[in-house]
Amino acid sequence: MNKGRVEAFSDGVFAIAITLLVLTISEPSNYRNLTHELVTRWPALAAYIVSFAIVGIMWLNHHSIFGHLEKVDRPLIQLNLLLLLTIAFLPYPTGVLGEALARGEGTTTAAVFYGVTMVANALAWSALWVYGSWHRRLLNPSFPESERNAATFAFNIGAVVYLIALGVAFLNAYAFLAIQAVLALYYALDPLSRRAAHGPSTPAGAEGTQSEARRAPDD
Amino acid sequence: MNKGRVEAFSDGVFAIAITLLVLTISEPSNYRNLTHELVTRWPALAAYIVSFAIVGIMWLNHHSIFGHLEKVDRPLIQLNLLLLLTIAFLPYPTGVLGEALARGEGTTTAAVFYGVTMVANALAWSALWVYGSWHRRLLNPSFPESERNAATFAFNIGAVVYLIALGVAFLNAYAFLAIQAVLALYYALDPLSRRAAHGPSTPAGAEGTQSEARRAPDD
Amino acid sequence: MNKGRVEAFSDGVFAIAITLLVLTISEPSNYRNLTHELVTRWPALAAYIVSFAIVGIMWLNHHSIFGHLEKVDRPLIQLNLLLLLTIAFLPYPTGVLGEALARGEGTTTAAVFYGVTMVANALAWSALWVYGSWHRRLLNPSFPESERNAATFAFNIGAVVYLIALGVAFLNAYAFLAIQAVLALYYALDPLSRRAAHGPSTPAGAEGTQSEARRAPDD
Amino acid sequence: MNKGRVEAFSDGVFAIAITLLVLTISEPSNYRNLTHELVTRWPALAAYIVSFAIVGIMWLNHHSIFGHLEKVDRPLIQLNLLLLLTIAFLPYPTGVLGEALARGEGTTTAAVFYGVTMVANALAWSALWVYGSWHRRLLNPSFPESERNAATFAFNIGAVVYLIALGVAFLNAYAFLAIQAVLALYYALDPLSRRAAHGPSTPAGAEGTQSEARRAPDD
Repeated sequence: MNKGRVEAFSDGVFAIAITLLVLTISEPSNYRNLTHELVTRWPALAAYIVSFAIVGIMWLNHHSIFGHLEKVDRPLIQLNLLLLLTIAFLPYPTGVLGEALARGEGTTTAAVFYGVTMVANALAWSALWVYGSWHRRLLNPSFPESERNAATFAFNIGAVVYLIALGVAFLNAYAFLAIQAVLALYYALDPLSRRAAHGPSTPAGAEGTQSEARRAPDD
Repeated sequence: MNKGRVEAFSDGVFAIAITLLVLTISEPSNYRNLTHELVTRWPALAAYIVSFAIVGIMWLNHHSIFGHLEKVDRPLIQLNLLLLLTIAFLPYPTGVLGEALARGEGTTTAAVFYGVTMVANALAWSALWVYGSWHRRLLNPSFPESERNAATFAFNIGAVVYLIALGVAFLNAYAFLAIQAVLALYYALDPLSRRAAHGPSTPAGAEGTQSEARRAPDD
Repeated sequence: MNKGRVEAFSDGVFAIAITLLVLTISEPSNYRNLTHELVTRWPALAAYIVSFAIVGIMWLNHHSIFGHLEKVDRPLIQLNLLLLLTIAFLPYPTGVLGEALARGEGTTTAAVFYGVTMVANALAWSALWVYGSWHRRLLNPSFPESERNAATFAFNIGAVVYLIALGVAFLNAYAFLAIQAVLALYYALDPLSRRAAHGPSTPAGAEGTQSEARRAPDD
Repeated sequence: MNKGRVEAFSDGVFAIAITLLVLTISEPSNYRNLTHELVTRWPALAAYIVSFAIVGIMWLNHHSIFGHLEKVDRPLIQLNLLLLLTIAFLPYPTGVLGEALARGEGTTTAAVFYGVTMVANALAWSALWVYGSWHRRLLNPSFPESERNAATFAFNIGAVVYLIALGVAFLNAYAFLAIQAVLALYYALDPLSRRAAHGPSTPAGAEGTQSEARRAPDD
């Protein structure tokens, strides 16, 4: 199994999951009051957009990590399938959270359910990175040794942050959804320039000049 | 992140969204009067075909734009995700509009909802182009400077046209759907020859001889 | 727009449509009599398998045709989108036909509806081929002139055959479904050897030795 | 039809089927008791995860087999479509099994239904391998002759094992699901090292050093 195949398959799952998300918004039942029906669905739309952003950013970061890998082996492919499982599953808690918020019922349960999925996702990211980077097992020679621990730290911090977000889910579902949006924005807006200047200090910065130069012949 | 990857991911989302559209046509409930049930669904079929055409044409134009780009950066990838959000979301307003027209209830609301989605889409196209072409930030050297302003103008006009269509949505949902069909046809039938003669004057003309020559080795 | 992109996008639509077909089989409602519920769904399973075979064979033939094309232009891409429309739509009549047969209601209407879709599909294939091969507009130089008329004839015969099948739909829905299965098998089992011996005499034979030799470097 | 196209199409079907699986988990109906509703769905979640693992592992093994093939011909492509049929269909029995277990009704029927699908799948794998490897018809020259019979034996044993699992389905649906999980884990955890040491002794070991060296230039 070469790396390109794993990336193409993963890209497919990301693309399908991000597009399937739209099916999580329940269809209106009463068309006489369609305006009212659509307006009450705004939390479902919000949950949709947050999950869309999450999957989109994760797709970006997935490429970053795989850009740092020289090769893949079977355990890494299995950890990658585990990661894809948490992403392909996301539409389900997204639909439940959106519907719960729209109905104003079961909101805490729905937020905790979504939060648990995100914690599992963060752990899968950590496992993927730790396995691949352990003793530089699968890392590209061009990945600077000085950045390795920082990246591992960033991944583990990510898991802690999503655990904290899960705590918020027990308090208020809207605050939880807002935190998920902020986290997605944080990962999305994280300026490239800073990373490009310091080298690929975290996985999110991998699309810097180095990797592009390295990949240019493949284009 | 190289350009090819962003294009492949976008192609995936376009292909999935265009194929998922079929799920927006509600299944018949009464099979004893199946002919009647199917006939009353003709507006849903019409909305399906219009949205199919829109996504198909946008896929074409997406390639045109990316054919004019030399490279991509993180903000452009984020604007591209924003654009894909409006496209992946389109099945939802398509289903709502088709169902509202079939039932004869909530048609204005449904048309306005669809229209707002298309305005958001047109703005995302404009943002993507303006960001990428601003001071030729990411443009191919082969893209003629003389065409840059014309293309920007065309994108902004597009946003205005979809705003006008949104205005029509408040008046009549069928007229709105017809306008969407005409707009899709306009973008689809826009003759290549005219563009090929003048160079890639608008994004819709990018699959001209130049880009094909440029891309030939990749085939 | 280069040819490879159009093929990749089309492949995506074929792969998604063929996989989405499973959603056309209605879920059981009564789990106490699950065996009975599943058994009564056998026509839905039959319609599913027939449509799966149809889309699969069409994917094969799509590659054959595009293997005979040297390049693509905008009208051909638009005709290809029209063809994809009929394929992406197929899950809907498949679901309706399977459900009608399972319920024993509206079977004639459902079969006619499916048959009309297949006639539209056959016409789209003809249009695609006639446009691309007219005066060898887009044909590969390696495609033998002697085969051109035979291929055009085969496509037009295809449209006539599907028209006849549509006639059968008015008589008996099961006979119609059986004919669709036979037609799919005919296109599927059409022996490669015969074609390889005579050159690519019909589109179904394009994966012969010539095209493989021609494509080998791309692998 | 070149091999790469068949692999890309198959990858698409695998990626879509694995992502569509999430739609098999029925949405909660009662949001007042959402915790209870979600908890009762644990068998649906279990069936989801088992099917996800099965499709993921099969995707891995599909690559292994195709890595051993030098070329493809039309019968192999048809057998591959047959295999894809059993995989694309899997979401349906997965949903039925999960729902039956969650309701505690029709569990035996649902497990048998799932088991029959898996037996059909195992037979399709066997047919694909036997056809492709018969007298080394399509095999890579690099595939060691000494391994051919062992691989054929492994595939046929697979069919027998899934037949035995089908027998268990008649006894207890939970035991059946557990066996499916164990089988997926067995195929997944099957250590690469052992295979790498002995050469690609079974299809599951094809991503060993040989194939990677052979494929490296394509990356």
